[in-house]
Amino acid sequence: MRMMPLLLTLAIGSLTGVTAAQDAPKTVIPETALSTAPALRQTALDSELGFRITESLTTEVGPRLAGSEADARAVAWAKAKFAELGYDRVWTEPVTFPKWERRSESARVVGRNAQPLVLTALGGSPGGTVEAQVVRFDDLAALEAVKPGSLAGKIAFIDQTMERSRDGSGYGIGSRVRSRGPSAAIRAGASAYLMRSAGTDSQRMPHTGITRFDEGLTPIPSAALSLPDADQLSRLLALGQPITVKVALDCGWNGEATSHNVIGEMTGSSLPDEVVLIGGHLDSWDAGTGAIDDASGVGITMAAGKLIGDLKQRPARSIRVIAFANEEQGLHGGYAYAKAHADRISNHLIAAESDFGAGRIYAFDTSAPAHAKAAAAQIAKALAPLGIEYKPGEGGPGPDISPFARDGVAWANLMQDGTDYFDYHHTPNDTLDKIDLEALAQNVAAYAVFAYLAASAEGDFGSAAKAADSED
Amino acid sequence: MRMMPLLLTLAIGSLTGVTAAQDAPKTVIPETALSTAPALRQTALDSELGFRITESLTTEVGPRLAGSEADARAVAWAKAKFAELGYDRVWTEPVTFPKWERRSESARVVGRNAQPLVLTALGGSPGGTVEAQVVRFDDLAALEAVKPGSLAGKIAFIDQTMERSRDGSGYGIGSRVRSRGPSAAIRAGASAYLMRSAGTDSQRMPHTGITRFDEGLTPIPSAALSLPDADQLSRLLALGQPITVKVALDCGWNGEATSHNVIGEMTGSSLPDEVVLIGGHLDSWDAGTGAIDDASGVGITMAAGKLIGDLKQRPARSIRVIAFANEEQGLHGGYAYAKAHADRISNHLIAAESDFGAGRIYAFDTSAPAHAKAAAAQIAKALAPLGIEYKPGEGGPGPDISPFARDGVAWANLMQDGTDYFDYHHTPNDTLDKIDLEALAQNVAAYAVFAYLAASAEGDFGSAAKAADSED
Repeated sequence: MRMMPLLLTLAIGSLTGVTAAQDAPKTVIPETALSTAPALRQTALDSELGFRITESLTTEVGPRLAGSEADARAVAWAKAKFAELGYDRVWTEPVTFPKWERRSESARVVGRNAQPLVLTALGGSPGGTVEAQVVRFDDLAALEAVKPGSLAGKIAFIDQTMERSRDGSGYGIGSRVRSRGPSAAIRAGASAYLMRSAGTDSQRMPHTGITRFDEGLTPIPSAALSLPDADQLSRLLALGQPITVKVALDCGWNGEATSHNVIGEMTGSSLPDEVVLIGGHLDSWDAGTGAIDDASGVGITMAAGKLIGDLKQRPARSIRVIAFANEEQGLHGGYAYAKAHADRISNHLIAAESDFGAGRIYAFDTSAPAHAKAAAAQIAKALAPLGIEYKPGEGGPGPDISPFARDGVAWANLMQDGTDYFDYHHTPNDTLDKIDLEALAQNVAAYAVFAYLAASAEGDFGSAAKAADSED
Repeated sequence: MRMMPLLLTLAIGSLTGVTAAQDAPKTVIPETALSTAPALRQTALDSELGFRITESLTTEVGPRLAGSEADARAVAWAKAKFAELGYDRVWTEPVTFPKWERRSESARVVGRNAQPLVLTALGGSPGGTVEAQVVRFDDLAALEAVKPGSLAGKIAFIDQTMERSRDGSGYGIGSRVRSRGPSAAIRAGASAYLMRSAGTDSQRMPHTGITRFDEGLTPIPSAALSLPDADQLSRLLALGQPITVKVALDCGWNGEATSHNVIGEMTGSSLPDEVVLIGGHLDSWDAGTGAIDDASGVGITMAAGKLIGDLKQRPARSIRVIAFANEEQGLHGGYAYAKAHADRISNHLIAAESDFGAGRIYAFDTSAPAHAKAAAAQIAKALAPLGIEYKPGEGGPGPDISPFARDGVAWANLMQDGTDYFDYHHTPNDTLDKIDLEALAQNVAAYAVFAYLAASAEGDFGSAAKAADSED
């Protein structure tokens, strides 16, 4: 996942609430649906389906960088998997984006402390080889405060630590160092940019992730060191003599690519044209096999849709499951979907994306306005036996949902325990063995119960097109 | 560390015991020394010296593959560090060995499941590129049982699991798969050899280590997959269709190199020509920075010697600390020392090497024969406050000590808790952050107390030249 800045998340949350009609009739979940939920929940808990889908994608396709040959195989895999699971409708929608390629990357300290350093290019970085003295900064603010041009001929290195947390809030700092650091380094005149990976582990694995360069700046090679390597570089610098590092990246933008959002739908019984949207993203970074980011999200939501489809009595509305294209490099799939379905906002009852790993869900929140709060509470009550608390005001839409949420679609958030998420996020270590089968089944149960009850609701959750000034 | 096969260890243990003179006078530790031990123990526990030495070697030199430029820097570092610590005598002794180089290594599944696999060449492997179908075996025995020539044109893959244990006993299997697997693969006709790393982690980091090829066989490219990659390859094979992997190793033997055992000595007060030998090994594998294997062993024993040297009243005998050359590729430093000092066996009162990581020491053992058992028990009693149990019959000499022990030198073993040792052993993850400062200080305290008391003993621990038929 890429995660939106917190402020944007909060802005979307409050805007969506304001948008809802103040005099709308109260939304309720019918008793028949509520009485069906426990059995659905238990079926999901007893099922390995979510894990098996996740296993299939990560094993058979492996890493699937957006626009790569493997990404195309992932699209074919998702279509075939939806069909195999018996989804009523399966289709794709094109998503076009700039294509970024990673070919090779290495770094080493040169001179009297000669040794390799383990790093990875940030997504969007240009290639290039730079051999220069390293200047270390404690944090992003320190680099942003230096005199323009003062780092000419140097490599800027931010050694800022990211804190572990259940809700992933520490990633706010980590992702800022990644997205804003390179531009700060360029303004300071630096020839290359290094950062301590945005991660919470102590493994010798760097964390990649997309970066960007401010308009008008000439991009420089930008990379993240593993945490032990950031420690090592800081220790070397603390010895007091100049440290020169050679960074060699072969990577960069290379034209455009078209991938696809892959969509499967279980048709609703009485309002099939209205949908509850759930999903994850199909692309991954290239170092790992994208197990927790985000094959698990695809597996959880594909399995949830399948289990709802298997019910004797389908809910009123359709369950639409989306495997989004290219989330990692800028929510391209999410933006494309929002654009393609801009005239169908009120048909999307509510939307939720799973993109924070495979840990147990501990909390539930939704943008439901006043007239739908009782229904949200009914859903929360059905989720409670899974150990899920109702925490109004704590969540926000998942990344690929966020463009559509900004346009007015109601969202729900099933918050996963991300305590160890940033140990593996965007590293070679994001592999299937990091996923607990039972925790994944709990996720499937939560998504199935949520989507089923929402799709059964009498009334809406506040989805309505925003005024034209709310642009993407 | 490389670790000796268990049977050899046991053989050395019993032989050493038998060798001791049956009518030797009883060895005792004098009361003056015993009364000094608690203060020495506490000084060591309060000191960061062992950690700081470990930090210095791993930071300033980094990885130091035997025979590399960095290995030569490590030798210079060790000489300088002994001098800086105030050792009375510092010298080097040459160690010559075949030089093995690693230049690059990669692997990928080709075809419809195309994806990279993370592996590392085994030490001693030749280079080469092989693209072939993979045949998986549950264990070494299964590969050894196949018909000669039946794997012609195939890659043999052993997916044998190694168990976690405090005493490292699981490595018996792991190291056998590494040392004997390649020859079994060659006999079966295979073009390349892959193994599940001899490790207990679930990180995407392969474990390297030396292998060997039986006489008369033509070596083939041989490598270890990380554990998640071994899982992935097994899952791919379980899909039921042929899986082709391309392995590309650029590595191999390249002439000879000469490195050095680096030796520092604190002169004894009354019997300076007799020594208690402690040490670790200076070389490391190249992927990590050799922190737990074995900068910690060097740091522990250098610090212990220094703290003994700082005592107002030196022990009777000298404390000799050795940073051994090239342990990893065949105990070359240990064999060279044994050969160079073959005529001085009885001058070596007792020897101990620290080469099992940086975990707390939990047990003590020695080859002490009957007449020295009471002294061994006295030492054990002084170690007990450190949480160390006396476990006669459980240990064996450290790897670099073992050739000399086979020749007749008495050994002690301060057994470290290796529960997590094989999570990091021989991987890129063997870095300073894996070492706990307090656990390392406990190790220094144990080595200091042991070496000080042994060097103060009235009497010997059984060191005596063996009969000429006990060859290296």
